[in-house]
Amino acid sequence: MNEIINLRRRQLLAGSAGTLAAGLAGSAVGIAGWSPRAWSAEPAKPKPLPDYVAWKDAQSLIVHSATTIETKRSAFGTSVITPAEQLFIRNNLPAPDASFVADRNGWQLAVEGVKNPRKLTVAELKTMGLETVAMVLQCSGNGRGFFPHKPSGTPWTVGAAGCVIWSGVPVRAVVEALGGVAEGMRFMTGTGGEKLPEGVDPKGLVVERSVPLKAMEDALLAWEMNGEPIPLAHGGPLRLIVPGYTGVNNVKYIKRLAFTRDETEAKIQKTGYRISPIGVKSDPSHPSVWEMNVKSWVNYPNPDSGPVPAGGLQIHGVAFGGVNAVKRVEVSLDGGKTWKEAKLVGPDLGRYAWRQFVFPVKLKPGTYTIASRAIDVEGNVQPENRLENDHGYINNSWRDHAVQLTVA
Amino acid sequence: MNEIINLRRRQLLAGSAGTLAAGLAGSAVGIAGWSPRAWSAEPAKPKPLPDYVAWKDAQSLIVHSATTIETKRSAFGTSVITPAEQLFIRNNLPAPDASFVADRNGWQLAVEGVKNPRKLTVAELKTMGLETVAMVLQCSGNGRGFFPHKPSGTPWTVGAAGCVIWSGVPVRAVVEALGGVAEGMRFMTGTGGEKLPEGVDPKGLVVERSVPLKAMEDALLAWEMNGEPIPLAHGGPLRLIVPGYTGVNNVKYIKRLAFTRDETEAKIQKTGYRISPIGVKSDPSHPSVWEMNVKSWVNYPNPDSGPVPAGGLQIHGVAFGGVNAVKRVEVSLDGGKTWKEAKLVGPDLGRYAWRQFVFPVKLKPGTYTIASRAIDVEGNVQPENRLENDHGYINNSWRDHAVQLTVA
Repeated sequence: MNEIINLRRRQLLAGSAGTLAAGLAGSAVGIAGWSPRAWSAEPAKPKPLPDYVAWKDAQSLIVHSATTIETKRSAFGTSVITPAEQLFIRNNLPAPDASFVADRNGWQLAVEGVKNPRKLTVAELKTMGLETVAMVLQCSGNGRGFFPHKPSGTPWTVGAAGCVIWSGVPVRAVVEALGGVAEGMRFMTGTGGEKLPEGVDPKGLVVERSVPLKAMEDALLAWEMNGEPIPLAHGGPLRLIVPGYTGVNNVKYIKRLAFTRDETEAKIQKTGYRISPIGVKSDPSHPSVWEMNVKSWVNYPNPDSGPVPAGGLQIHGVAFGGVNAVKRVEVSLDGGKTWKEAKLVGPDLGRYAWRQFVFPVKLKPGTYTIASRAIDVEGNVQPENRLENDHGYINNSWRDHAVQLTVA
Repeated sequence: MNEIINLRRRQLLAGSAGTLAAGLAGSAVGIAGWSPRAWSAEPAKPKPLPDYVAWKDAQSLIVHSATTIETKRSAFGTSVITPAEQLFIRNNLPAPDASFVADRNGWQLAVEGVKNPRKLTVAELKTMGLETVAMVLQCSGNGRGFFPHKPSGTPWTVGAAGCVIWSGVPVRAVVEALGGVAEGMRFMTGTGGEKLPEGVDPKGLVVERSVPLKAMEDALLAWEMNGEPIPLAHGGPLRLIVPGYTGVNNVKYIKRLAFTRDETEAKIQKTGYRISPIGVKSDPSHPSVWEMNVKSWVNYPNPDSGPVPAGGLQIHGVAFGGVNAVKRVEVSLDGGKTWKEAKLVGPDLGRYAWRQFVFPVKLKPGTYTIASRAIDVEGNVQPENRLENDHGYINNSWRDHAVQLTVA
């Protein structure tokens, strides 16, 4: 933390790098989730969208800070795909300036840890293959706001997630073209291209993440999101996409893709994004936040929708299984005492995407606690309780995500 | 036509209703495709986006008129779904003012030709069912620009089409709730809610379309497009969605859904949107433009992409079968002399959506004529030649859609 605090102080004193300073201030926690910060369910008063995401739909979003912006539960539609204007933002460093996307095809990626390492431009990558994957993008800390111990970090409820379509070249196609993975490599390590301030240990700030080699199988080097060039705010011109893994593993503005024997020594990997017991500082002995777990939640009704009249109601929400497809979803109207199967609707965009579910009911006046519970094709059942952990990661408790409804 | 010309003149003279006048001027053809108009491949100079679609991405679009706006071939991404900001516009009447979407849930629809006809608000429709469908939305005249006889109407090339996700209540759920379709009804007739000017025969202007009753099966009354409330420009607050049918049958701002014994007498149905021989004014004896036919085109390379260097190239495009799923796509590099099968990639969003196809090649310097040809699950093959017709509808000729490529 001292590095960060000192960095901020220096920059503020120097009166320069205002954007960086502001960004760091906003995402102090973000620079890998260690800094203590006052926990709050929602910002005291609505903040405006920062300039770099001024194109987003302010009505649909909760601005926690310049680098942490959440989709409102009430804004999630029923059309499977989350539009870019509504998609959450969570940057570990301040977003780079627009020069990053001035020449998208000219952006360079160094590929290392393969038989024939080399640099490739996006233009070259575009000649090497093309694939498209629909995927849930979810921050590791989505659902943190439900942890009663008020972990440091943004108190997201459900909106640090979206389902998006990415296009790019399969990592395996690039690796094949470069002679295959070098011997003995066990991890795929991506490095973000953010410019780091001088005079600090880059390991303390760099967004560099390692995932197990097997994650390469369906990974993409993507230049397109939802049919458009990836916006800078979401990692354009080039982003590493690791379907089924939490957001931080999908490295933005990727400048280096390395196959490595060991996990990176970067702080964000070594001690950040790990599951440690409450009160225990995380270290490399604690499990990394990698694959997502089975999860669902109801989007309608939601805390903002207020009482509804008695009669018909289409309860709906989303369900996903991380690396596994969702098999079924159950809904409870009585806080988990009894469950009934919901209907999966709409197009199935593949195992990494979420499914919409609908549960039609006729309700008499009264109060209801509506919960949903997803089961994946491997038989994993969304649990009642969260896995307690210091930083409030990977919360998939159905109880935490339940909503109260008053029928008038 | 006289009605329209007189109307415009009156309005211009009165110095009021400027928006309506401008809209009609732009879409004179549009008011069901009858008015003669100078044909041109592209507007002489780029026109700005009209105010009602100022939120769209101007870079991706060709503005033909205030009510006819085309997606550039070079702007189509590879992510299956066409974002709203890039989606084409083709309105048969000027877009209504924003009051139409001021109270989305309060919008009223009259349902007629059922056992128990009644009016329903969008709020009520939302309690009756929820389904989502991904669908190619394509103007009947997409590809008109390739007809050598220069039909009246907008000279679209490929960009009066997109693949979008709609959510709403299935028409069959509404019909069931109202006791079923009344006896003897053979058509489903939707009426647009546009306010028509006084003093003209409404039948001459109203956007009212009939489709065969069987189209009801997968039809939706939709309030959401690509995860957001349907923009006014695309028919919000409520649009009739008839998957597999050309754009005009998907009635915007729908205010009346009627099951009828006969087709509507509205001009747009009676003499508009029919396939008549060149030079022959269409009449009810000519076939209506309803179901779309099997079609594909290459999006990259495209006329704007210029020469490419020798070496690897990922040719890609889209393919769809109207009411049938696409089974396979073939690509030719020699203007149709030889064909090879392309690879379908990305999520399959169902029979009404388009599929992305990719054809990886290594090309030596030279010139190539690149064509694609789709085959649907029923064995229908995209034809070499267009069906010649007076108004230039439903062009699915693979030859017309081929692109020239220079490899340097």
